[in-house]
Amino acid sequence: MQAEIISIGTELILGQIIDTNAVYLSQQLQRLGFDVFHRSTVDDNEQRICDIFRVALSRSALVVISGGLGPTKDDITRDAVAKVLKSPLVIEPKLITMITQYFNRVRPGHQMPKNNLLQAYVPKGAEYLLNQRGTAPGLFIEKKVSKLNQKRVSRINQFIVILPGPPRELQPMWENQVVPELKKRMKQQTVIKYRVLKVVGMSESAIDEQIQDFMAPESNPEVGLMAALGEIDIRITARAKSESAADKIISSVERVIRKRIGNAIFGADNDTLESVVGNRLRSKNLHLAVAESCTGGLISHRITNIPGSSDYFERGIVVYSNKAKQDLLGVPKETIKKYGAVSEQTAISMALGLVKRTRINIGIAVTGIAGPTGWTPDKPVGLVYIALANANQYQNCVKYKFIGDRELIKWRASQEALNLLRRYLLKLC
Amino acid sequence: MQAEIISIGTELILGQIIDTNAVYLSQQLQRLGFDVFHRSTVDDNEQRICDIFRVALSRSALVVISGGLGPTKDDITRDAVAKVLKSPLVIEPKLITMITQYFNRVRPGHQMPKNNLLQAYVPKGAEYLLNQRGTAPGLFIEKKVSKLNQKRVSRINQFIVILPGPPRELQPMWENQVVPELKKRMKQQTVIKYRVLKVVGMSESAIDEQIQDFMAPESNPEVGLMAALGEIDIRITARAKSESAADKIISSVERVIRKRIGNAIFGADNDTLESVVGNRLRSKNLHLAVAESCTGGLISHRITNIPGSSDYFERGIVVYSNKAKQDLLGVPKETIKKYGAVSEQTAISMALGLVKRTRINIGIAVTGIAGPTGWTPDKPVGLVYIALANANQYQNCVKYKFIGDRELIKWRASQEALNLLRRYLLKLC
Repeated sequence: MQAEIISIGTELILGQIIDTNAVYLSQQLQRLGFDVFHRSTVDDNEQRICDIFRVALSRSALVVISGGLGPTKDDITRDAVAKVLKSPLVIEPKLITMITQYFNRVRPGHQMPKNNLLQAYVPKGAEYLLNQRGTAPGLFIEKKVSKLNQKRVSRINQFIVILPGPPRELQPMWENQVVPELKKRMKQQTVIKYRVLKVVGMSESAIDEQIQDFMAPESNPEVGLMAALGEIDIRITARAKSESAADKIISSVERVIRKRIGNAIFGADNDTLESVVGNRLRSKNLHLAVAESCTGGLISHRITNIPGSSDYFERGIVVYSNKAKQDLLGVPKETIKKYGAVSEQTAISMALGLVKRTRINIGIAVTGIAGPTGWTPDKPVGLVYIALANANQYQNCVKYKFIGDRELIKWRASQEALNLLRRYLLKLC
Repeated sequence: MQAEIISIGTELILGQIIDTNAVYLSQQLQRLGFDVFHRSTVDDNEQRICDIFRVALSRSALVVISGGLGPTKDDITRDAVAKVLKSPLVIEPKLITMITQYFNRVRPGHQMPKNNLLQAYVPKGAEYLLNQRGTAPGLFIEKKVSKLNQKRVSRINQFIVILPGPPRELQPMWENQVVPELKKRMKQQTVIKYRVLKVVGMSESAIDEQIQDFMAPESNPEVGLMAALGEIDIRITARAKSESAADKIISSVERVIRKRIGNAIFGADNDTLESVVGNRLRSKNLHLAVAESCTGGLISHRITNIPGSSDYFERGIVVYSNKAKQDLLGVPKETIKKYGAVSEQTAISMALGLVKRTRINIGIAVTGIAGPTGWTPDKPVGLVYIALANANQYQNCVKYKFIGDRELIKWRASQEALNLLRRYLLKLC
């Protein structure tokens, strides 16, 4: 069954706010087993709302509309829906009581503006949905429509759900009222589930070549790739009659993909490099310190975004001057003079300084040129050295040449540093 | 002139990512004077892409499409556009060179997968747009169409712009290539310009009360408020026949607003707290060091996002253990024992330790509880102390109680630390 989403509001179309409702509703509709193929956004214009609503009714079994239910002049969703459905707006006395009560609760002692009562009008035949967090009620409409399908006319049920725009009003209304109604009235059909495998250190096209045989469109499961910054997501989407059947379909393909891509896959779904590395450090009871030059604190920031990271993260040192490298890490003045602050020798000396001066198990050090200034012909923007030392000795130093602007180079360097650490921890096993 | 936006991608329609391109393009199109009334999102399905593209061509002078230009099987935007326009895909030899060069630059030593070359195909008659940050070229198509308007046929120019989905590829392509082309080829009509004044440390409603008289809808300039994380933007939008006329309208209102809000306005347009603070430090030839506990490196990261920040940022120290606070900042063991790591005394001792151990002019220290663990009844999640010391002595310590999850508390604490620093620098004048 096909569902689609219409978001109404000039502020959306002007780009003044991000349409988080569309994202939320997309996810929710999938969980109910709907196919969502279309999403439309339109400004507060009655003619255009009517046009889009008509198109949606012609192709979707469920149309979810958000926005334009407020009490002001530019809130015209009720009118547009009434017009298209040819159901006149009628006043619903219970809504007058509800709206007045809500208003008096949140603004005691204030006179309710008259235009709030416009919200008590509903298209004839529509059911209303209570709003716990605002004056705008939602609407739920079920209608029988005749559909011509391969020369046979069938009668199907079509659903129209209209919700207020503010997410904090829309979400509880959806979850507590709309979902139970829909489940009750529809014959449950397909469940759609997906799983994301996260890859670091491989290009999109290299992954594509490895798993192309799974990537035919309209297959089940459907496999797709999505590139994020320094990461690629492999998304496996399955359709089935039940959640457990969908899980089975996903895991059979997941197994093969994991075999082919190997441990370039660092996690799944909501995992991040920093959460994966953090879990490993904790489970091995290891402690980490980080010394950063060009990444400027980003690695420490990412590691400490994880709740409980104080279990394994001991300190981070951002050495943005040569003096700080000498003072805080004991990098010899001569090393910096001879090889430069951005060099393999300095990176190694930073990492060793970290583990020597603390009683930490693992130290990671990054030095490089994030640009756009500070480069020389020998040491261009994007040149970065990352070194790893453990309590006994220096282990590894890798040279990188990243492309991008300052923030991207910082990000990619942090990504590689976390990945270097991850690979080191994998070897410990 | 009417423009519309089509966003292509199954990951969008599934709600897996937020469509920031649509927001960006909406804003950009307004600045060029286009009316944007429709925005559509569709999955990676050729039939549906073709249908929506046809509808868009029937009603808009400019159609901007983003996404689906990658090298993989599910990237079918090129094919759909070629089909609707009835322009066969032809190979563009210059693009082969460009794509190969880009690939070799970012992945030296790797063999480019063959499917990357699919990106060298363009619909016949289309111009290509160079991509500095990826292999997918954009497309720019101008076509003459006959339009029946009040029984008269007129010939108008219609524009189709197709851009890669990743925002960091799309945005420079739009700004550097598409905007100049559109300006050259269209008859410019109304200019819309806006200016953003950025406020920190005042609530949305407090600002609203100060400048309400400017905030009537449909006025020129239009003044609106937008709340971001720990910041409020005051947006002044003007319509006029020319850029200079729009600038005049904006600056007359800006002057009054600045007088009323005072130096809670920290900057305008693309300014950030870290860039504003950085400029002041540089112009006064001051040097900064930062000691962070609960912010975990975020303040250092934000400061070092600004190019040239090594001119004034000397070091950052992330002290995530008591031992690190003692070793690196000389916080007495007794202070931590008596008052706790999260206390005014520890914050002050951290800030003083910073400036004493370095020859730095200004030291900022932050200690607090980012949660969700690590709290006590006395010291709840969100409790943060921020202290500032200069070379001579301790200057200031402020206690905060932030609301939110871990990342939000980190962010708000970094915001207040930067604002404390900004206000200190303002007083120095």
